[in-house]
Amino acid sequence: MLNAIDKKILAEVADLHEIPHGAYNIRKNGEKAGRNTTANIDIITKQDKPGIDIIVKPGTKGESVHIPVILSEGMDDLVYNTFEIGADSDVLIVAGCGIHNPGSKKAQHDGVHEFFVRKGAKMKYVEKHYGEGDGSGERILNPKTIIEVEEGGVAELEMVQIRGVDQTKRDTEVRLHKNARLIVMERLLTTTNQNAESNITVELTGEDAAAQIISRSVAQDHSTQVFHLNMRGYAQCRGHIQCDSIIMDQAKVSSIPEISAFHSDAQLIHEAAIGRIANDQLIKLMTLGLTEKEAEDMILQGFLA
Amino acid sequence: MLNAIDKKILAEVADLHEIPHGAYNIRKNGEKAGRNTTANIDIITKQDKPGIDIIVKPGTKGESVHIPVILSEGMDDLVYNTFEIGADSDVLIVAGCGIHNPGSKKAQHDGVHEFFVRKGAKMKYVEKHYGEGDGSGERILNPKTIIEVEEGGVAELEMVQIRGVDQTKRDTEVRLHKNARLIVMERLLTTTNQNAESNITVELTGEDAAAQIISRSVAQDHSTQVFHLNMRGYAQCRGHIQCDSIIMDQAKVSSIPEISAFHSDAQLIHEAAIGRIANDQLIKLMTLGLTEKEAEDMILQGFLA
Repeated sequence: MLNAIDKKILAEVADLHEIPHGAYNIRKNGEKAGRNTTANIDIITKQDKPGIDIIVKPGTKGESVHIPVILSEGMDDLVYNTFEIGADSDVLIVAGCGIHNPGSKKAQHDGVHEFFVRKGAKMKYVEKHYGEGDGSGERILNPKTIIEVEEGGVAELEMVQIRGVDQTKRDTEVRLHKNARLIVMERLLTTTNQNAESNITVELTGEDAAAQIISRSVAQDHSTQVFHLNMRGYAQCRGHIQCDSIIMDQAKVSSIPEISAFHSDAQLIHEAAIGRIANDQLIKLMTLGLTEKEAEDMILQGFLA
Repeated sequence: MLNAIDKKILAEVADLHEIPHGAYNIRKNGEKAGRNTTANIDIITKQDKPGIDIIVKPGTKGESVHIPVILSEGMDDLVYNTFEIGADSDVLIVAGCGIHNPGSKKAQHDGVHEFFVRKGAKMKYVEKHYGEGDGSGERILNPKTIIEVEEGGVAELEMVQIRGVDQTKRDTEVRLHKNARLIVMERLLTTTNQNAESNITVELTGEDAAAQIISRSVAQDHSTQVFHLNMRGYAQCRGHIQCDSIIMDQAKVSSIPEISAFHSDAQLIHEAAIGRIANDQLIKLMTLGLTEKEAEDMILQGFLA
């Protein structure tokens, strides 16, 4: 069912070189291409719309769920996934999407992911997006991620758009209750005429909720990027946004964050910077014998790592 | 023509304890209450709309223009002022507005100030806003400031809303040409149910243009503040926004900056923080014998100085 190209894409988006251990659900061109459940993690196909329910039992520790999606030319895929992360569990969820589009028709995947991280649970969520193919067909990915973190819960998100995605609109909404924590690492690379928009809104509603967002991006060629990173504090809480972009060639980058405090004990910080590759770093690497291009690539790799 | 209250207000908004040296134009309740011109600085009443033209001759150095406005109950004043700052001049412009409103009717001043800072000219512009009066009548100030800084010119703005302004919407638009420089220091205090909105947009259009905006605010009681600080780089340029707010009581503060780079050699940085008074500073002052209230006042004064 999975061919050589599929396997290459799975390796890119889910670090999968073979069928994963633990629970998984592989979706290929809108169809189920493989599924495994465990004693603690169930995966159930939704009856009312395309998508799955992933149910992690309370107390489940050290387990993982892989739910990669593979797409090819001409596909327009829409999926709704719901994650129930049981109280006091500690799990890893890997949810990449890779598009191999060698043709002239667009391939699009829109995913709505909704998470309930229950009391004291800890979830790490990794989402990688990747596109490839020599054709003119557009590769489009529009993920919507909604996360509710209950008391004492932790959500750690690693959201990466590696390469080759022509259009993306990423919407992420997180609500943090008492003592809940959020860590977001976003990495984005755009080239050619690609467009990327990333909107992240975090509501700190519970006492001692804390959130940290680090967003790093590189915009090359004629690509454009827009970031709306919003943090809203409704209680005694702490929030920190850091947003760094490297701009190259004829690219355009806008960073439009918003911090709003609705409580006198809300502490919110935002930092954003847009600039070119640091010249002194380039020169240092070039004196070590690298060409300018090699030095540039090395710096960009480090920046997006 | 100027009574004791007028003189107190002039002292607050223009640091004027007597009639100023140099050029001045005092506006009281929509009427001219005094004017002086010099050999290098002319002030002309506009014919087509309320307001004045201030014309600084090229090469004028070390001179100042004071154009304070005084307003009382029931007045709704709208004025258009145009400033022509001649090439290679170096001048100080002080343009405060003070409202003494003891009654129940609102008093409002809307000012549109347009500046042309010509080649190599240097302008420092100080704008202080102040309201007082025990009545229930609202004190409203809506300044609009438009500044064009030509090649090699420098505009330094000090914009302060001291106290007692119930409603304000401040719009500031600056365009910087080649080698032009902008420095903005904004200070804002709101109390009771006051609302303040400050929108600053800077366009860096010329090569080696540079801008620095530092905005500091304190929001007390039930007051609200919203900041939109936008920096747009269209050339090799540098821009830095720093926005710090202290939030107290039931106040609300939103900081919504925007940095946009449309050129790969644009370097833009934004930093924003909203938080309460640092506890260690409070404790330090209280161990020196100050009450909590005194310590708080001293910290706020230092912050807004």
